[in-house]
Amino acid sequence: MFRTKTCGELRLADAGKKVTLAGWVQRSRKMGGMTFIDLRDRYGITQLVFNQDVNAELCDQANKLGREYVIQISGEVAERSNKNIHIATGEVEILVDTLNILNEANTPPFTIEDNTDGGDDIRMKYRYLDLRRNSVRANLELRHKMTIETRSYLDKLNFLEVETPVLIGSTPEGARDFVVPSRMNPGEFYALPQSPQLFKQLLMVSGFDRYFQIVKCFRDEDLRADRQPEFTQIDCEMSFVQQEDVLNTFEGLAKHLFKTIKGIEMNEPFPRMTWHDAMKYYGSDKPDLRFGMKFVELKEAVIGHNFSVFDEAEYVGGICASGCASYTRKQLDELTDFVKRPQIGAKGLIYIRMNEDGTVKSSVDKYFNEEDLKNIAAKFEAKVGDLILILSGPKRKTQKALCELRLEMGERLGLRDKQVFAPLWVIDFPLFEWDEEVQRFFAMHHPFTSPKPEDIHLLDSDTGNVRANAYDMVINGVELGGGSIRIHDSQLQRKMFELLGFTPEKAQAQFGFLMGAFQYGAPPHGGLAFGLDRFVSLFAGLDSIRDCIAFPKNNSGRDVMIDAPSKIDQSQLDELNLIIDIKE
Amino acid sequence: MFRTKTCGELRLADAGKKVTLAGWVQRSRKMGGMTFIDLRDRYGITQLVFNQDVNAELCDQANKLGREYVIQISGEVAERSNKNIHIATGEVEILVDTLNILNEANTPPFTIEDNTDGGDDIRMKYRYLDLRRNSVRANLELRHKMTIETRSYLDKLNFLEVETPVLIGSTPEGARDFVVPSRMNPGEFYALPQSPQLFKQLLMVSGFDRYFQIVKCFRDEDLRADRQPEFTQIDCEMSFVQQEDVLNTFEGLAKHLFKTIKGIEMNEPFPRMTWHDAMKYYGSDKPDLRFGMKFVELKEAVIGHNFSVFDEAEYVGGICASGCASYTRKQLDELTDFVKRPQIGAKGLIYIRMNEDGTVKSSVDKYFNEEDLKNIAAKFEAKVGDLILILSGPKRKTQKALCELRLEMGERLGLRDKQVFAPLWVIDFPLFEWDEEVQRFFAMHHPFTSPKPEDIHLLDSDTGNVRANAYDMVINGVELGGGSIRIHDSQLQRKMFELLGFTPEKAQAQFGFLMGAFQYGAPPHGGLAFGLDRFVSLFAGLDSIRDCIAFPKNNSGRDVMIDAPSKIDQSQLDELNLIIDIKE
Repeated sequence: MFRTKTCGELRLADAGKKVTLAGWVQRSRKMGGMTFIDLRDRYGITQLVFNQDVNAELCDQANKLGREYVIQISGEVAERSNKNIHIATGEVEILVDTLNILNEANTPPFTIEDNTDGGDDIRMKYRYLDLRRNSVRANLELRHKMTIETRSYLDKLNFLEVETPVLIGSTPEGARDFVVPSRMNPGEFYALPQSPQLFKQLLMVSGFDRYFQIVKCFRDEDLRADRQPEFTQIDCEMSFVQQEDVLNTFEGLAKHLFKTIKGIEMNEPFPRMTWHDAMKYYGSDKPDLRFGMKFVELKEAVIGHNFSVFDEAEYVGGICASGCASYTRKQLDELTDFVKRPQIGAKGLIYIRMNEDGTVKSSVDKYFNEEDLKNIAAKFEAKVGDLILILSGPKRKTQKALCELRLEMGERLGLRDKQVFAPLWVIDFPLFEWDEEVQRFFAMHHPFTSPKPEDIHLLDSDTGNVRANAYDMVINGVELGGGSIRIHDSQLQRKMFELLGFTPEKAQAQFGFLMGAFQYGAPPHGGLAFGLDRFVSLFAGLDSIRDCIAFPKNNSGRDVMIDAPSKIDQSQLDELNLIIDIKE
Repeated sequence: MFRTKTCGELRLADAGKKVTLAGWVQRSRKMGGMTFIDLRDRYGITQLVFNQDVNAELCDQANKLGREYVIQISGEVAERSNKNIHIATGEVEILVDTLNILNEANTPPFTIEDNTDGGDDIRMKYRYLDLRRNSVRANLELRHKMTIETRSYLDKLNFLEVETPVLIGSTPEGARDFVVPSRMNPGEFYALPQSPQLFKQLLMVSGFDRYFQIVKCFRDEDLRADRQPEFTQIDCEMSFVQQEDVLNTFEGLAKHLFKTIKGIEMNEPFPRMTWHDAMKYYGSDKPDLRFGMKFVELKEAVIGHNFSVFDEAEYVGGICASGCASYTRKQLDELTDFVKRPQIGAKGLIYIRMNEDGTVKSSVDKYFNEEDLKNIAAKFEAKVGDLILILSGPKRKTQKALCELRLEMGERLGLRDKQVFAPLWVIDFPLFEWDEEVQRFFAMHHPFTSPKPEDIHLLDSDTGNVRANAYDMVINGVELGGGSIRIHDSQLQRKMFELLGFTPEKAQAQFGFLMGAFQYGAPPHGGLAFGLDRFVSLFAGLDSIRDCIAFPKNNSGRDVMIDAPSKIDQSQLDELNLIIDIKE
């Protein structure tokens, strides 16, 4: 071992001890005949002292050390006269008597500090240096702790972690697969799993009873800030359970993590909201409940005032922003610009101010008198000083825009504190969603999700309104996890494939083994998968999951540090029976 | 929840309780007016009783239940008159009053029993049924426990589990990569990692200090019984360590697993043997030390007796099989056939019997008189009743054949008890091995392995004899894990690539980021990776790693259950800019 102690463990009680430390030179300063060096490792920083009067040669050596040099030193622990109360080792320093340079270092392309001067691109290229920063490493330490606690909780509940294969078959239903050509089976491909869904269901058929896996999954999708081509799930499945059992078990896991990792006791049951209500009151299937501003539907209240924008709109709805009546023209214009951005696409924004003097003024005073406005305001229970913001247009689109406006107002009002956590179960999702473009139903969750038993009779007659035994855990507007009770009956599964437009042959070819398995005694089962990256990001207060992934890829799916993907040798292509044919 | 108790938890103390159970019908028998059903779940088997006299209708229903039906029952726990002392629940039975069929089952294609009638192929096709067998599930439960204990041990020692990417770049050095075409980067490919080697080294450069990961790795190799295209490693790396520290840390892990999982306390340090001695005395770099039969080299002792087979052989060596002097001609012929098999390739087998009457007889009496034979026997310290077996020929090949013969004799003599564990560290591996075919050196371990400092001066002059700071943990002849102290100096790493025949440009193109990283302050570091599949197999006493993998692939790399790999849609190929071109 190159050290007897780490840079994080020495305390005043150790004064007088001889120690050997190893680590990186964080910074160095000369003061008179003394040289002070902050020596860093993962565990902390310890101050080293070199004294010109005691050992001039050693001090000269120390003066030549550059930032990020790797050194090993020995010396005596001493009490510092000038204590640093901000760090745990701040009461001591080492009077160095031996210095050994283990490795030199070029000057890093950016400073290794919490507030670095490095931009995104350079930090990704030199990710191994970026990972030296405390703030980045802390995210990965958090991630480690969360997986340890997750496994501990699930293990105690008799869940078995079972590894499912990474090289599986491709299924066109769902997102795009990454595929892997098979050399031993020419012309055939494996696919990387988007989730271990089928395998965990087979494990239930096998009687494994309770399964989990912290597992990499893959999706070849165009990337966004919170998407990576490879991501990690806490994937779980249970047998002989109803929806209530699954919700309780995984609400328990979330509470366990909040308690052990964040020190937050969540004693109340998580609120539950139907998908229908989530859309109606928040315009989203993952509402951020850290703050109110529930939507109020206004169509009936505003119709018939000769204001064609409202009269012709499928939907009119608004929110009430507390204390914002004093917003300036500039602020209101900003909000109007915000909702008119192409990503949001509203045509305009209408406001009603509840002025301090008791008057009520709006941007549609031409069509609504003060009495009308007061009636509208009453629906929001608006008080003096509040600002009502109204959007109108096609229903789903306008709700979505209003959702964005609500989140924006929450942000502006400081109501989205990252240290506050508002959990929620969204339940009763629709089983299907209609795709206008291809004119067929798609499974909202996946094709293995069970309809609610009481809705099964609607499968043919009112397909779009069949509700699923499906649920999402949402915290602070982030969908942390989701799952469902599965179909365990091969007849019902066949029906489901039929409704999704599979021919019997295609269903058999792709999922025959699952329907076969269901004929040999499948138990009722259900489960859930959490997105680990999102869970860690939530706990760490990150804006992007990238910051809790050691070696993430950029928006083109590239690892710029190792420069992957890359060209491969012709001999590899030949062995795989492949020709590259790039269309211009 | 479909149950109040599992099928494994009821005891005599529960008699009188009302319970609800759910599970599979293991078997059913009618005796007079009573029907007994063994209900099975993962946790055990509980006997159900239906009484014709009490409830004829219910009993009739029970009589119709087939094997592997999934049922839910309620009833009262009662003491059994006819107790089964072999199972924990054997003192009680359930007097059933409610029966609910949750799912029917076709007759399984093989019996779900420990000793099944199903052959390998059918069990793989219906793996989800095979996994219902206790013996198979027990292996996966063991695997789960081993990973839990591994993480617990490493977490306590401050190791952080960090996920490294699965989509990385292809490196031609080493085994064949699986590759993944990138849609977003036309003509370019990711590769699946053969190990996270480079990433864990970068994490050391990042100051992570102690890393581990239980991680899937991939190799596109032709498969054998103990090889799978995807396999799992316990991958570890540490900074500021010497070889001794790594050996102690992971010997500690192995001992922790033996203690917590197998209940075996291993108090002695694991023996250590140089690679040189392992080859000399056992003809293998992974000797099985459950038994002796060390090789004795005989070239000098046997030369000059006009026996050209010995005189012309590069190597003559033998083993002494205790108590085998009475082997019959047939048994000796079997052994001769064994060593002459093409996989072993010896030309013949020579024996010396230490007869009970004190005489010594051999198959080469024509060339060696009794005095000669006794001199040879003395080298083995052979006793009356022993059998000496001798092979000769080219050195390495003959040692290998003798190794196989030794293992065969160990097997025949019952010296390879699966409940006995003989651990060993093999150390001081050569850094390079020469490949006759391509006339260049290859890295025996991998190109990042550090030479022993005292051998660095031999790198150019005596390349083949440079020893590495590399080590393998071997138990019972199985290489469970291996690792090395790594190079952390970019100059030395460059030298290594040069000796391996890389041009500076090629080294830069493939490993530039690593050599770059080494210039920014790389700490001394080293590590090790265990093969989890092998470790579990060893503990479970399995002959193939396949039996501890939930969904393994066959020797053609196929998953016959899901029928993967398979053809993919033309649209997928088009998106990936690929054309399949199978040469006839």
